[in-house]
Amino acid sequence: MQLVKLLLQGNRRALARVITLVENDEKEKLGILQALYPHTGNAYVIGVTGAPGAGKSSLVDRLLAEARTEGLSVGVIAVDPTSPFTGGAILGDRIRMQEHALDPGVFIRSMGSRGSLGGLSRSTRETIQVLDAFGKDLVLVETVGVGQSEVDIVRAADTTLVVLTPAAGDSVQTLKAGIMEIADLFVNNKADLPGVERTFAEIRAMLDLRSEQPWRPPVIKTICTKGSGLGQLWEAIGAHRAHLAADNRLHEERQLRVRLELAGEVEHLVKSKIWEEIRERVSLEGLIQQIVDRQRDPYSVARELLELINFPF
Amino acid sequence: MQLVKLLLQGNRRALARVITLVENDEKEKLGILQALYPHTGNAYVIGVTGAPGAGKSSLVDRLLAEARTEGLSVGVIAVDPTSPFTGGAILGDRIRMQEHALDPGVFIRSMGSRGSLGGLSRSTRETIQVLDAFGKDLVLVETVGVGQSEVDIVRAADTTLVVLTPAAGDSVQTLKAGIMEIADLFVNNKADLPGVERTFAEIRAMLDLRSEQPWRPPVIKTICTKGSGLGQLWEAIGAHRAHLAADNRLHEERQLRVRLELAGEVEHLVKSKIWEEIRERVSLEGLIQQIVDRQRDPYSVARELLELINFPF
Repeated sequence: MQLVKLLLQGNRRALARVITLVENDEKEKLGILQALYPHTGNAYVIGVTGAPGAGKSSLVDRLLAEARTEGLSVGVIAVDPTSPFTGGAILGDRIRMQEHALDPGVFIRSMGSRGSLGGLSRSTRETIQVLDAFGKDLVLVETVGVGQSEVDIVRAADTTLVVLTPAAGDSVQTLKAGIMEIADLFVNNKADLPGVERTFAEIRAMLDLRSEQPWRPPVIKTICTKGSGLGQLWEAIGAHRAHLAADNRLHEERQLRVRLELAGEVEHLVKSKIWEEIRERVSLEGLIQQIVDRQRDPYSVARELLELINFPF
Repeated sequence: MQLVKLLLQGNRRALARVITLVENDEKEKLGILQALYPHTGNAYVIGVTGAPGAGKSSLVDRLLAEARTEGLSVGVIAVDPTSPFTGGAILGDRIRMQEHALDPGVFIRSMGSRGSLGGLSRSTRETIQVLDAFGKDLVLVETVGVGQSEVDIVRAADTTLVVLTPAAGDSVQTLKAGIMEIADLFVNNKADLPGVERTFAEIRAMLDLRSEQPWRPPVIKTICTKGSGLGQLWEAIGAHRAHLAADNRLHEERQLRVRLELAGEVEHLVKSKIWEEIRERVSLEGLIQQIVDRQRDPYSVARELLELINFPF
């Protein structure tokens, strides 16, 4: 594979090409990912998530700058679950980040949802692997975080930042949405806005509800537009990394991640195959009409379809 | 099935009991859902979604009152993807709705995520069917809406309201998150807050970007706390319902929904079975360790596991 060889030699065009292949789910993808896999496992992955408008992009910009100051090479994946019909229009705010575009130590990629959001989380995880194999020291993944697929995306991160602002409706209510468990650090951004102390207190109260855990997520106040709090945040990320490194925790986390990846791959293969087989043998239209008409129910039809393809167990 | 019979006779305790069985995924569930299915298809389902803090619960309260005025019997499902460790604590805001608790024409149920969010969307859809079979004219489903599982939940609705407020970060940014396509109506709530005109304009601009479609979602301004705009909203819901009834659209929507339900059921069965079989034959631990150590890759291991269980195609 010439492309894989070039990528491993540090060729940026090969990198861009491979990510496109991954994103488009091309035939070559499987072979490429298999060939790159032995070269992965070195990059540290930071996930940045939070409600829309919380300032995630600015924060990623700032973290990128911090990392470059320390001489780390960085990959950025900005995951944008934009709906197909709005297309690239809303990707405009990405352009800002292009100030780093000429820096050879930085590679930035926006990923949109071309199909399902599940597919998006899949290709994000694969792109992390590609950047890792390319030799990036650090991969920053930014995504709007409230739903399950966004949770899946940040699950690929070693350290996950949840960004909150004092803005209305952005405090405890946001924490509802299942994101609390995955936060390693809370960033209380826009800390110059009124209400910041309330948000701060609410996060702490939420954390106090939890049972004792080996890592208590710190809450860092930042004002990205002024660069304030960024040093402290960078230190806190370092502290979490050190925490993971101790007592084999990073290893355990990565085991869990491999487990999820393997499960995802198995289920993806099985689902594709099952539907291919079903569609070869039966037209679903008639059955669906019968269910719509309440002559049949979806539960027994599902079982019947699996019998039909001799789903064997 | 005594329980099914009681439920179909209008027994509320049987209804509550069945929903609990569904939520807990008990063995009896399959038989119950099969028995109830022929009695479904009569309820009209309204989904209410939007960013946290947008005022969805108050809106549902108001819609409930409107529906009762018209003599409709109503079921409410308040879906709360609260994380397990915060538990019922945040469900407090539900209590407000209990003013309807003594009304025999109203049945309210909160559903939390006991396991995965995918499981939550599954049991929400099943609970809609149970309420439908029970004879509810209208089912209101409220959920925080930004991620894929929430999209899956509202996909079970005939009319979906997306609630937005003029609050910071709640406008165009929210629309990014894949919710635009599923909105049949936009509710611009808290219309007494500053910024409401901007939100209004942004939604319209977004809608203008879309290709011509048979239904253009209207944008209704409401102030739930004052009850203002609610009559207009109720009328708009009626207009959407009439739109669906014309040209067979409701039928087509329900066909699509049955298709998704059937697919969900098939995939659920297949996944459970596949993992049962794999776990019987092999301990995953060793394989996962080999992948972590980069001696193997997840792509070929996934294929090997499927060969191992003679996944037959």
